[in-house]
Amino acid sequence: MPGSRDTFAGRLHDRVLRLDTRVCLGIDPRPGAHPRTDPAKHGHDPARIGRAVAAYAREVLDATHDLVACVKPQSAFFEALGIPGLIALAQVIADARSRGLPVILDAKRGDIGSTAEAYAAAYLADGVFAADALTVNPYLGLDTLEPFLAAAEAGGRGVFVLLKTSNAGSGDLQDVVTAAGERLHERLAGALARRHVGMARDGHGYGPLGAVVGATYPRELAAARARLPGSVLLVPGYGAQGGTARAVVDAFDDDGLGAVVNASRSLYYATLGDDVATAARTAAMAMRDDLNEALARRAG
Amino acid sequence: MPGSRDTFAGRLHDRVLRLDTRVCLGIDPRPGAHPRTDPAKHGHDPARIGRAVAAYAREVLDATHDLVACVKPQSAFFEALGIPGLIALAQVIADARSRGLPVILDAKRGDIGSTAEAYAAAYLADGVFAADALTVNPYLGLDTLEPFLAAAEAGGRGVFVLLKTSNAGSGDLQDVVTAAGERLHERLAGALARRHVGMARDGHGYGPLGAVVGATYPRELAAARARLPGSVLLVPGYGAQGGTARAVVDAFDDDGLGAVVNASRSLYYATLGDDVATAARTAAMAMRDDLNEALARRAG
Repeated sequence: MPGSRDTFAGRLHDRVLRLDTRVCLGIDPRPGAHPRTDPAKHGHDPARIGRAVAAYAREVLDATHDLVACVKPQSAFFEALGIPGLIALAQVIADARSRGLPVILDAKRGDIGSTAEAYAAAYLADGVFAADALTVNPYLGLDTLEPFLAAAEAGGRGVFVLLKTSNAGSGDLQDVVTAAGERLHERLAGALARRHVGMARDGHGYGPLGAVVGATYPRELAAARARLPGSVLLVPGYGAQGGTARAVVDAFDDDGLGAVVNASRSLYYATLGDDVATAARTAAMAMRDDLNEALARRAG
Repeated sequence: MPGSRDTFAGRLHDRVLRLDTRVCLGIDPRPGAHPRTDPAKHGHDPARIGRAVAAYAREVLDATHDLVACVKPQSAFFEALGIPGLIALAQVIADARSRGLPVILDAKRGDIGSTAEAYAAAYLADGVFAADALTVNPYLGLDTLEPFLAAAEAGGRGVFVLLKTSNAGSGDLQDVVTAAGERLHERLAGALARRHVGMARDGHGYGPLGAVVGATYPRELAAARARLPGSVLLVPGYGAQGGTARAVVDAFDDDGLGAVVNASRSLYYATLGDDVATAARTAAMAMRDDLNEALARRAG
């Protein structure tokens, strides 16, 4: 068995246990909503906006790093800022990693063959966008996940496959009932579980192949937990999207491991005023405690 | 009815008819395979590689622009080169557009709500990565396509939804048979056709909502053509992946419109020697003629 620092799941669980937190801090530099980067107030110079986005993220990281298990930058918001936004993304990834925070890059990439290899090289190998884990989209087929899994295994990194997303329309394809009577995401979960067999696990039994299941679908969270015993679940949709601590509790195993719950707006934008540090810290502490109390109630 | 230059489909069809070509030039700066940017031969300086990638693309564009209907940069290969790669992508997009070439950015993005809006802002609005059309992944649900469609309609741009991709494993999810007896991609095509009703069309009846169907699945191409009468089909998988002119002919309507066929390796890397211009031009001309002859045979 590899050392706990050798795998993404191991590094994540080290922090979860040491800091007793299951919070994933979402870093979403939304245009306008972002304090100090509202073009209406601060002008449209892209380079200046990029620097302000990175500086704001650093402030939130400094204020919350000991309260969160990992961070999840949302690539889309950085991409929308052009080259300066991508420079800011590289800076945010470096800042988080320098604080020992595992980085899950939420980029939902997916493509075939050598193109998937290029995405894996961009995000799961070395380079300025190198993350500890990447979200990937399975629509193109299981073969298209292989380059991501190979990179994750080679570098002790992780992959989170979209299974059941948090949005209202997620059922359009994901819930389609197959001729065999199971829903598409259930069928996918079965295939992922089979694929995961034999891949390196951390000391708690978790491997590199994780899955994304939204906090807005508590039954699907519990089902995914049962179907994917070795997969870390990344649970978005908490807070602003309506997910509660009670709703996400079944994403965790009996030891309170195997999942992280992401919140972006409610932590990252806890304040629109000037005291970002205090507001973000207070919000992260409250979310950490809410999750832990819900787990304790379940155990009790 | 809007003028033909006001919509992506109109601009594309103007070129198809004027130049009598249905070729989409794929721009895939593959590491190593790329002439003059092989790190083994030319060193690892990222900025230099980025400049060489953009210069090579310009050379191919200059050699082929009057032979191709549009270009399709593959974002993954640029992203894998880090910040200099993304600067090169912006340059390639600008170079193509300055030559009047519609740009389909192949980035296969997809996310929910305001995150999808950010991707649409990045690629289907103004800014350095602004393209004429974008490939998008539908797995997250039909609601997640809306921000892309809204941006496409607002700016006379296009969206290509992944329907049936060219890879061997594309059937894992896309071909799943639903309880209603249709395959997932057929069900999706039906939903897209319904959604397309009422959106602005060009003079040939084509609107902003296109679809991706691989050249490696000729029957699915014909079925998609029938199911999606107003959708331009983007057909990858020609050449290196095994698709032939005969295989893709049914992607086109009776007037030879409504589809473009992409080739990357066989055009972009037509030579690994020094005379890029002649080799790429010869290959593009041959592919243009092969497609046109196959269409003529079908008509005859």
